[in-house]
Amino acid sequence: PNRAVAKFVQFASLTKKIGQEDPRRVIHSLKVGFALTLVSLFYYFKPLYKNFGVSAMWAVLTVVVVFEFSVGATIGKGINRGLATLLAGALGIGAHHLASMTGNVGEPLLIGTFVFLQAVVSTFIRFFPRVKARYDYGLMVFILTFCLVSISGFRMDEILVLAHRRLSTVLIGGCTCVMVSIFVFPVWSGEDLHNLIADHIEKLENCIEGFGEEFFLTSELKNDKAVPVTYRTVSNSKSTEETLANFARWEPGHGKFMYFHPWKQYLKIGNLTRQCARRIEALNCYLNSEIRIPRGIREKFRDPCTNMCKESGQALKELSLAIRKMTMPSSPSDHVMNSKMAAQNLKSLLTSDSWEKDTNLLQVMPLAAIASLLIEVVLSVEEIAESVNE
Amino acid sequence: PNRAVAKFVQFASLTKKIGQEDPRRVIHSLKVGFALTLVSLFYYFKPLYKNFGVSAMWAVLTVVVVFEFSVGATIGKGINRGLATLLAGALGIGAHHLASMTGNVGEPLLIGTFVFLQAVVSTFIRFFPRVKARYDYGLMVFILTFCLVSISGFRMDEILVLAHRRLSTVLIGGCTCVMVSIFVFPVWSGEDLHNLIADHIEKLENCIEGFGEEFFLTSELKNDKAVPVTYRTVSNSKSTEETLANFARWEPGHGKFMYFHPWKQYLKIGNLTRQCARRIEALNCYLNSEIRIPRGIREKFRDPCTNMCKESGQALKELSLAIRKMTMPSSPSDHVMNSKMAAQNLKSLLTSDSWEKDTNLLQVMPLAAIASLLIEVVLSVEEIAESVNE
Repeated sequence: PNRAVAKFVQFASLTKKIGQEDPRRVIHSLKVGFALTLVSLFYYFKPLYKNFGVSAMWAVLTVVVVFEFSVGATIGKGINRGLATLLAGALGIGAHHLASMTGNVGEPLLIGTFVFLQAVVSTFIRFFPRVKARYDYGLMVFILTFCLVSISGFRMDEILVLAHRRLSTVLIGGCTCVMVSIFVFPVWSGEDLHNLIADHIEKLENCIEGFGEEFFLTSELKNDKAVPVTYRTVSNSKSTEETLANFARWEPGHGKFMYFHPWKQYLKIGNLTRQCARRIEALNCYLNSEIRIPRGIREKFRDPCTNMCKESGQALKELSLAIRKMTMPSSPSDHVMNSKMAAQNLKSLLTSDSWEKDTNLLQVMPLAAIASLLIEVVLSVEEIAESVNE
Repeated sequence: PNRAVAKFVQFASLTKKIGQEDPRRVIHSLKVGFALTLVSLFYYFKPLYKNFGVSAMWAVLTVVVVFEFSVGATIGKGINRGLATLLAGALGIGAHHLASMTGNVGEPLLIGTFVFLQAVVSTFIRFFPRVKARYDYGLMVFILTFCLVSISGFRMDEILVLAHRRLSTVLIGGCTCVMVSIFVFPVWSGEDLHNLIADHIEKLENCIEGFGEEFFLTSELKNDKAVPVTYRTVSNSKSTEETLANFARWEPGHGKFMYFHPWKQYLKIGNLTRQCARRIEALNCYLNSEIRIPRGIREKFRDPCTNMCKESGQALKELSLAIRKMTMPSSPSDHVMNSKMAAQNLKSLLTSDSWEKDTNLLQVMPLAAIASLLIEVVLSVEEIAESVNE
């Protein structure tokens, strides 16, 4: 019993953690419950039941399948399902009609052929990358509805009633989902994407500033992992961003976002941010490097390097603020200019001959690498800035 | 009409390309068509139709929804669907029974409460990361079946027949899918994962060897992007690998793979490979760097660096072969030892004082950075080797 209690406590704390991480999850669960209860009670009460018969369960089915976390995903799935049902229903009725004219022998053969061909073609089309991104679900519903309608052994007039019922119940379910998801505490993918990109840029800012302090100011006394390693979440975020942008395209205009908001631009900024994150990752390798750098050399590099870190961090901060507030950042920003100037200083420091005699190249090596990586980071910050301006 | 023809030609060539990229896609489409036609004709012929009634369409529905590209995904979805239907059916009957005892007023209220609570809890559980990875689909089917069974306004004996029919048709559909997907040209996720990891290591080999040749041998004459930039596909492959490993866990033993094949180890190797890919990416930044390195210095570094590139490339090749053939690589491998030795040479070359007078630090800087990155690459190659040995 003790182990069971321990398990339960563990489960409860996990539940709490997941809820606290993103309280919208709790709200989403309640929304699903609400929409489902609404449709179920519709179905339960007789008037609707008499009109639609067993078909009414398609409304329940649609709610369960279509309701997604964000508005964009819900609308996307709803539209996919609605259109696919309509199209496949029409084609299925046509196929059924054609087959029923060929008589008892030809009918199953012809229907089998139709079902086979349709399934093969639709399944193959699902592999097209663009289709997969936006219409995968629609094609599945298409295959499904076509099969159901064309193989049903009913007479023609029955089939029309059936198709009509199915379509209207799917519409009822779909509209309930879309309404609840838009009007009850909506979760917009577009907004999520917007915030995600701004967050990532801010994380990079923390990383680069943390690196400067860690490496040049605390000199010898290092405790591992004091620098935030949040750049890891940034460099693995490609698929998340793409999914969000896909959903965002389905969403109607809302709040600060117009209908044709340039979501693709966000993906571009995201790519540049990831590139920058990888450079910072490469920098951080040197924090745990074995090679010790003599204090004298470190001192020499300290000012230009910490300056570069600080200025590019400031530039990133400015950019993330500009994204958050959707204002045009001043272009070219002072901080970007300053960090480029600091990079120039660093370069001239490296070319100066004043300190070449007493140094050992192995000891300077990491610093030189760090310097060139920092220069690269400054370059990518500049690219991000240009991209944000567009 | 010309534009339509052009569009059609474009579409046809895209189709051909997608088919050629992976011919298993074409086979998969045919398999789906086959399974679906099989189940549809079952449904179409009267004997089965009389036994199962309209419920028989659940078999068709199951095939469309459950049939996935790989065996693992199909089995996973099939098991999810089967178990969820069973469990939710039982609970739904219980809920319906309980509610029907409370009389006409209490019944809809109680059923509404059950549906609501069940939907909220199940939807929330879907956010648990582990559940999401393996049982997401099962929970959706659970919500669905519970609602359908509990709200259906039938009498108790009818409901039992209905639940039994639904379960058996789902089983028929699910088994058809699993059988076809296992016995007709199976696509194993595990094998895909295995090959993907080996491919990635091989790609890194090409990159590192290409880098050595490009940078040190062709000296001044560079054409951009002669080095394969395939490391990009490697460094963005995290989610693909995780999905495949997830599916692979559902698969029964097949070919070279036992049932409890250590799929997690592949993810570990994949992570290390990605880390190595990022280091190579950082190296490649220097190929397009603006800073020109004098020929003399370049010559000095040429031998140890190309040696390191070659040896670590060979070590990677050995590893990818070892993975492909599933043999134990000789540990520690000669090539790993050699590349470590070359790294030592490089370090001592950097510490030697022989060439310090006439050099300009800015010109040596990229080489120093490259050297230290190469040392890091050698280290990650060693880590990968250790990981493969496990």
